[in-house]
Amino acid sequence: MTEIVPVGAGPLEPAAVEPRRAGRPRSEGADRAIIEATLDLLADFGIAGTTIEGIAARAGVGKTTIYRRWKGLESLICDAVAELKGPLPTLPGTSIRDDLIALSEAAARGRESARNRKVYACFIGEMARYPALDAQYRSSVIRPRRELLATALKNAIERGELRDDLDLDILAEIVSAPTLHWLLHNPDRSPTRRQLEQFVDGVLDGVGRGD
Amino acid sequence: MTEIVPVGAGPLEPAAVEPRRAGRPRSEGADRAIIEATLDLLADFGIAGTTIEGIAARAGVGKTTIYRRWKGLESLICDAVAELKGPLPTLPGTSIRDDLIALSEAAARGRESARNRKVYACFIGEMARYPALDAQYRSSVIRPRRELLATALKNAIERGELRDDLDLDILAEIVSAPTLHWLLHNPDRSPTRRQLEQFVDGVLDGVGRGD
Repeated sequence: MTEIVPVGAGPLEPAAVEPRRAGRPRSEGADRAIIEATLDLLADFGIAGTTIEGIAARAGVGKTTIYRRWKGLESLICDAVAELKGPLPTLPGTSIRDDLIALSEAAARGRESARNRKVYACFIGEMARYPALDAQYRSSVIRPRRELLATALKNAIERGELRDDLDLDILAEIVSAPTLHWLLHNPDRSPTRRQLEQFVDGVLDGVGRGD
Repeated sequence: MTEIVPVGAGPLEPAAVEPRRAGRPRSEGADRAIIEATLDLLADFGIAGTTIEGIAARAGVGKTTIYRRWKGLESLICDAVAELKGPLPTLPGTSIRDDLIALSEAAARGRESARNRKVYACFIGEMARYPALDAQYRSSVIRPRRELLATALKNAIERGELRDDLDLDILAEIVSAPTLHWLLHNPDRSPTRRQLEQFVDGVLDGVGRGD
């Protein structure tokens, strides 16, 4: 399969998770070139315009080199976008403020270049049209990050740092939304450390005068 | 012009704002069919797969009927997505809580159908690749909504309802992000009124125990 078929354009791809790599030992140079070529094409043309042929041409490798390393286009795209996000952060665990800043910094990581910000802004919406890719990305990238956030919130509730009258989904949305939304709507710049801190302090302390 | 050319695929379209409609009186039935056809194609194929030819075929009208009403594909797509959002809400002005709930409900409006949620989730990221469309959508749809929010926040600061130590952009991001982010990341369901209230109350009161 050299092209991903969106819903509405033809038959759906199954959402089964498949082993990612097989066969010969990897060549780091070729892998890097293939990942970078995939990100370049995603930035310029989106998922719809990213094909194995196009990636091979841009990376200067043969299609067989790609298929030796990745099961298919979904796996390759998923890996390329996952690489932008980098590894899961380690939570300091010293306070919910420290944990949330660490999570925000991790979410903002990989957005330093305009290309990367563009890949992500487009990808997260467009992937809804590609069920197999959507399922793979959600399970391998989004879910572990949400679980990490949920763990941080539960620990903070136990330590008495957070209100315990809001359900966990609402809490998770409120604390993570400013950074994530800012990244989606500002494709021209990354948030500063100061801005991330203001988001975290704003949601922890509240923006109202209250009482 | 019958196809929008993304950055990287060819020459850029100028971002000039053009008069939207010209010529003969409009036919409401044909307009409706054209708008719906545009939204159908955007949901299934994104901006890259939405063409004047495709819209004409799906709406059952001739291309000239479309060009009689819209200056080009950018204007038509922009109008179609703007229609999803509906008119600007009227702010009650009774409290910042009431204003923010009114703004959240307006943001969530038009997302009742799965098709409409999909259009918006994809569109907002994908439009970054189309400078003319991006500029037109930002000036005609996003900017008036941001200005309305800024007005609500300034009035609330004057009334002493909000902290005055956060700059307006940070405040605006914190109060609007949960609803907007939730809409982008949950293409399968609309937020309930209760959820919108919890977002607003959460950011106004803060989620931390504080002191």
